[in-house]
Amino acid sequence: MTVRVGIVGAGMIGHDHARRLSGALAGARVTAVADAAPGRAEQLARSVPGALPLGSGHEVISSGEVDAVVVTSSGPSHEEFVLAAIGAGKPVFCEKPLAPTPGACLRIIEAEMADGRRLVQVGFMRRYDDGYRAMKRAVDEGLIGTPLLAHCVHRNAASPAFFTSDMPVTDSAVHEMDIIRWLLGDEVTALSVLPTRRSGYAPDQLQDPQLLLMETAAGVHVDVEVFVNCQYGYDIRCELVGETGTVSLPSPAGPELRRGGTASRPVPPDWHQRFARAYDDELQDWVDSVRSGQATGPSAWDGYAAAAVAQAALTALGSGTRTPVVMKDRPSFYG
Amino acid sequence: MTVRVGIVGAGMIGHDHARRLSGALAGARVTAVADAAPGRAEQLARSVPGALPLGSGHEVISSGEVDAVVVTSSGPSHEEFVLAAIGAGKPVFCEKPLAPTPGACLRIIEAEMADGRRLVQVGFMRRYDDGYRAMKRAVDEGLIGTPLLAHCVHRNAASPAFFTSDMPVTDSAVHEMDIIRWLLGDEVTALSVLPTRRSGYAPDQLQDPQLLLMETAAGVHVDVEVFVNCQYGYDIRCELVGETGTVSLPSPAGPELRRGGTASRPVPPDWHQRFARAYDDELQDWVDSVRSGQATGPSAWDGYAAAAVAQAALTALGSGTRTPVVMKDRPSFYG
Amino acid sequence: MTVRVGIVGAGMIGHDHARRLSGALAGARVTAVADAAPGRAEQLARSVPGALPLGSGHEVISSGEVDAVVVTSSGPSHEEFVLAAIGAGKPVFCEKPLAPTPGACLRIIEAEMADGRRLVQVGFMRRYDDGYRAMKRAVDEGLIGTPLLAHCVHRNAASPAFFTSDMPVTDSAVHEMDIIRWLLGDEVTALSVLPTRRSGYAPDQLQDPQLLLMETAAGVHVDVEVFVNCQYGYDIRCELVGETGTVSLPSPAGPELRRGGTASRPVPPDWHQRFARAYDDELQDWVDSVRSGQATGPSAWDGYAAAAVAQAALTALGSGTRTPVVMKDRPSFYG
Amino acid sequence: MTVRVGIVGAGMIGHDHARRLSGALAGARVTAVADAAPGRAEQLARSVPGALPLGSGHEVISSGEVDAVVVTSSGPSHEEFVLAAIGAGKPVFCEKPLAPTPGACLRIIEAEMADGRRLVQVGFMRRYDDGYRAMKRAVDEGLIGTPLLAHCVHRNAASPAFFTSDMPVTDSAVHEMDIIRWLLGDEVTALSVLPTRRSGYAPDQLQDPQLLLMETAAGVHVDVEVFVNCQYGYDIRCELVGETGTVSLPSPAGPELRRGGTASRPVPPDWHQRFARAYDDELQDWVDSVRSGQATGPSAWDGYAAAAVAQAALTALGSGTRTPVVMKDRPSFYG
Repeated sequence: MTVRVGIVGAGMIGHDHARRLSGALAGARVTAVADAAPGRAEQLARSVPGALPLGSGHEVISSGEVDAVVVTSSGPSHEEFVLAAIGAGKPVFCEKPLAPTPGACLRIIEAEMADGRRLVQVGFMRRYDDGYRAMKRAVDEGLIGTPLLAHCVHRNAASPAFFTSDMPVTDSAVHEMDIIRWLLGDEVTALSVLPTRRSGYAPDQLQDPQLLLMETAAGVHVDVEVFVNCQYGYDIRCELVGETGTVSLPSPAGPELRRGGTASRPVPPDWHQRFARAYDDELQDWVDSVRSGQATGPSAWDGYAAAAVAQAALTALGSGTRTPVVMKDRPSFYG
Repeated sequence: MTVRVGIVGAGMIGHDHARRLSGALAGARVTAVADAAPGRAEQLARSVPGALPLGSGHEVISSGEVDAVVVTSSGPSHEEFVLAAIGAGKPVFCEKPLAPTPGACLRIIEAEMADGRRLVQVGFMRRYDDGYRAMKRAVDEGLIGTPLLAHCVHRNAASPAFFTSDMPVTDSAVHEMDIIRWLLGDEVTALSVLPTRRSGYAPDQLQDPQLLLMETAAGVHVDVEVFVNCQYGYDIRCELVGETGTVSLPSPAGPELRRGGTASRPVPPDWHQRFARAYDDELQDWVDSVRSGQATGPSAWDGYAAAAVAQAALTALGSGTRTPVVMKDRPSFYG
Repeated sequence: MTVRVGIVGAGMIGHDHARRLSGALAGARVTAVADAAPGRAEQLARSVPGALPLGSGHEVISSGEVDAVVVTSSGPSHEEFVLAAIGAGKPVFCEKPLAPTPGACLRIIEAEMADGRRLVQVGFMRRYDDGYRAMKRAVDEGLIGTPLLAHCVHRNAASPAFFTSDMPVTDSAVHEMDIIRWLLGDEVTALSVLPTRRSGYAPDQLQDPQLLLMETAAGVHVDVEVFVNCQYGYDIRCELVGETGTVSLPSPAGPELRRGGTASRPVPPDWHQRFARAYDDELQDWVDSVRSGQATGPSAWDGYAAAAVAQAALTALGSGTRTPVVMKDRPSFYG
Repeated sequence: MTVRVGIVGAGMIGHDHARRLSGALAGARVTAVADAAPGRAEQLARSVPGALPLGSGHEVISSGEVDAVVVTSSGPSHEEFVLAAIGAGKPVFCEKPLAPTPGACLRIIEAEMADGRRLVQVGFMRRYDDGYRAMKRAVDEGLIGTPLLAHCVHRNAASPAFFTSDMPVTDSAVHEMDIIRWLLGDEVTALSVLPTRRSGYAPDQLQDPQLLLMETAAGVHVDVEVFVNCQYGYDIRCELVGETGTVSLPSPAGPELRRGGTASRPVPPDWHQRFARAYDDELQDWVDSVRSGQATGPSAWDGYAAAAVAQAALTALGSGTRTPVVMKDRPSFYG
């Protein structure tokens, strides 16, 4: 069975996922696409043989030619389309964030639970990165003992000019919020955001870099440097420190060049390149789960938890103080 | 268009490729399979929905349900099946070696040239490895200047018990013979094989390790350690040395574990794991080339050249002396 | 001229320095030694040809056979002996801490300034480590642009059983307090200490690990993980993050061993081994400065500044809040 | 006791050793110096307090103010001065080569044996490098099992303009000849020298790079790339491959700089910097051995063995064929 996928949102990430589904993964083809902006759906459809541009996301979701939905529209519209997909009983892959607020995420959770089976997967692609997966295996096998703390670095070469000080936390560090939850099997319960000396390369309205301090239910402290104008490349690091050892995310393998007095290897320019394989594996896993009828990837609950942590981070950013994360208890539905 | 693939040879590598084509790559499905051993085709077919077991490789090749052929049968039978595929006008992906002798490879070349278009791709998957590709880019961009020499290491944890002294050269080092040709855009013109102190872990009849010394038309010397019972893992290394710098194949990225007085990262256990992504990309590229009608991967000529070098290596192994490689001139057909 | 050195304090570090001065460095010999504990001076003297055990530190300092003094007695006695050396007009190398309180350090500073020339060097040996020196050159040459933040890790395999929660900060992290001041040419102005999930390997009375957050006058934030029971070895890391790049302390060079499925290199067991060369270079520099009459190493001011930061850290540890560092202005005497 | 050292040969390496002995090591001072070139001894003496310029090497050796001798004159004069030191019963440290021919080395050996005790240490400083020492420990502890082969790289950024094709072998690779003997506790019995594609940066008369293939009595094969105009820096590598694992010489620790799209660390510019600590430790060990009366460093036998291998290499270079090393049996005097 080939999964017929409808894509809601034909921006850059929509194009990427369409290209993956039609040209690099097994078991799927793109049959329909829509976008709020005129002409974009048509543009995407031209590059994907067999994809039909439709007038709206809702037409895509309800189309008889669509078995499953990828939501890559703007964040504020996610709730509407994910709820529609659940309403149609169709599996839906939604790019992060699941929705901009914890409340919106809860409405999705309620709809999914009411429907009675998991239909939603959220686009936390790092869980599919070979490096993070190997780290998780090391933790789960007890190789570092009980985890005690963690250090993370999240650096982008340059931010968009419109970035404001909340975005490094909600757009960038949200990946660390999710991956730490996943690596540790633990929930984030409180956090602080510390401004540090500003980079002159950051847009005027942006505090960059920032230092995020998270605490988990088990008492693990996690510091996250978020620096979205570091100039030199895209650099993601993570070290988990346990009672008997530590495990670190590997740097991407690149050839060593010895030349002109130095031995060097490349730093990836951006997340496209850094996590290309993870995006492939994430979507293949989603397609496989659609075919098997068994959802296994990041769930709506994970989307909600990340939103709850991000919301506390916004409060912490504004107040300058340690802020508890307000979260519901995890329903047994989400294991 | 979905390429309907027939698989000739249902051993381990046949299973691997069938799994890839049906479960991890875009644009293909497996429709037929055959194997010389009774029951094996059926076994493979059971694990691949839609694949039909047929009575022989020739039935697969001539089947109306097959657009393109993957040959993963035993080496000696490659010539027969590849020629049949060419005869049927169907694109064929043939695992290395293309054929056991240069003469057999030449017959394939002649058939392909007579047909008038490239139909054959040979399974030199390393050309699709991200690390080797980055090395080639570095060389082609002039980052190391004119290449002068190269060092290679090819280590397996353990060889099969039946390995004889020719096999490390013809089965293992053949990958280095091809990749050096590709990295340098140069032909191997002579070589020697040196025995060194034997490992007690090698089977009795096997000289292991061996040191292979190759020379190219441009005068580049390449030393290759081939050690197929190194015990500790699968370890492939390559450094190209140029007039102004060097570039090295990256070690596979793995998490660093700090524990018990050491900082360590894993060495892959075998080529399955080490080159998993390269195999994926190789077959996807082949499927894409079938769809586009434009073959771009390793050609029959590359298969012939590797066979010619391997044959000279066998002579060198027997004689203990430097042996020239006997090769035809490259037809313009192969660019 | 050979500098005749008197050693006050014949414990482990006193033995180390005596061995260095008599057996590994140029231009010095140990002529006198004293210790508060009976018999220890004699024991040390037996292992150093020409060294005379004397009845007290003051006898050593005033001895006509002593040109310069090394103070390696217990921390609380440092002030008394350093002041005595200044009173005698003799150069004095004092192990860290210069004195346990900022007030005691200030009395030393006043005595040294009254004397009119620098006589005191404090034992912050990391400033002599090749790795930190290379980092400082990189910063000073502008290779990373304006420094914005820093990450440090300070791990010991195991703490003494008597360690209490203030000691990781005052005994261990004091090295980071000094090295950050030196690397950045900046003063620490405030700090917090965060407890994290406790290791079960720490003694009952000890909070371990701890996370120290420092801020400098220029606004640089520095996080320091201090973990003195990490089990696996002695691991010191430091990364400075600037506007255009970052520079990291190198791991100690050790041979890579490939064996049993991993590639590993050793982590040093303790600071003795990790900073052996730095201790040599530190003391050689001190001996050279005594011979040249020109003190250049870490000064009494550096000792005072570290004590002021450490005192604020103790307050922060007790209160759980961000605590400003109370410090005098730097006298021009200390450049 | 302070060892009074006389230096015969006031060139660059003579200056280096004089500076070390007087300014960086314990237990020695330089009291006399001579050089064949007028004025050079005086120049060196001015930079070392207490050193007297004398009229000839023989005056230095026989001086009553000299306990031990350092020979850093030109290679052809080594034999004469080392024999004179033996004749005077004084310990002598001789820079490599001990003498230019095996015959000259044998005359030194005979003189030393006739005298009845080891007086000669040869300047193979790599044996004092922390990295090589750690490799040797790994081998001796059985961590890699029985050694089977080895790979070495010896690269200099640029050779002197007068370099001829024999010099990379006799001047540069002689270090590998010695270190392999020492690491393996084995003798080199045969070798070949292969020219490879020439670098255009090499002087016209120089074949560069070259590939040296050595075999030991135990059957271990060692390949050595010698490339003395590699442009990018001074790069020394060594990997020993055993039955169960491998161990590699660490790259020198240097800070990692992330900047402009790459992560890089420095390659040392030359051997001065790369082996600075090894030179210190080598001479300190020699001074200690003079004080203890117990020679332990590289012996006259080691100097002879290296000369025998180098002579075979010259023959191999000329003939282009595998050449046996002609060597006497090792006298029990040299353990």
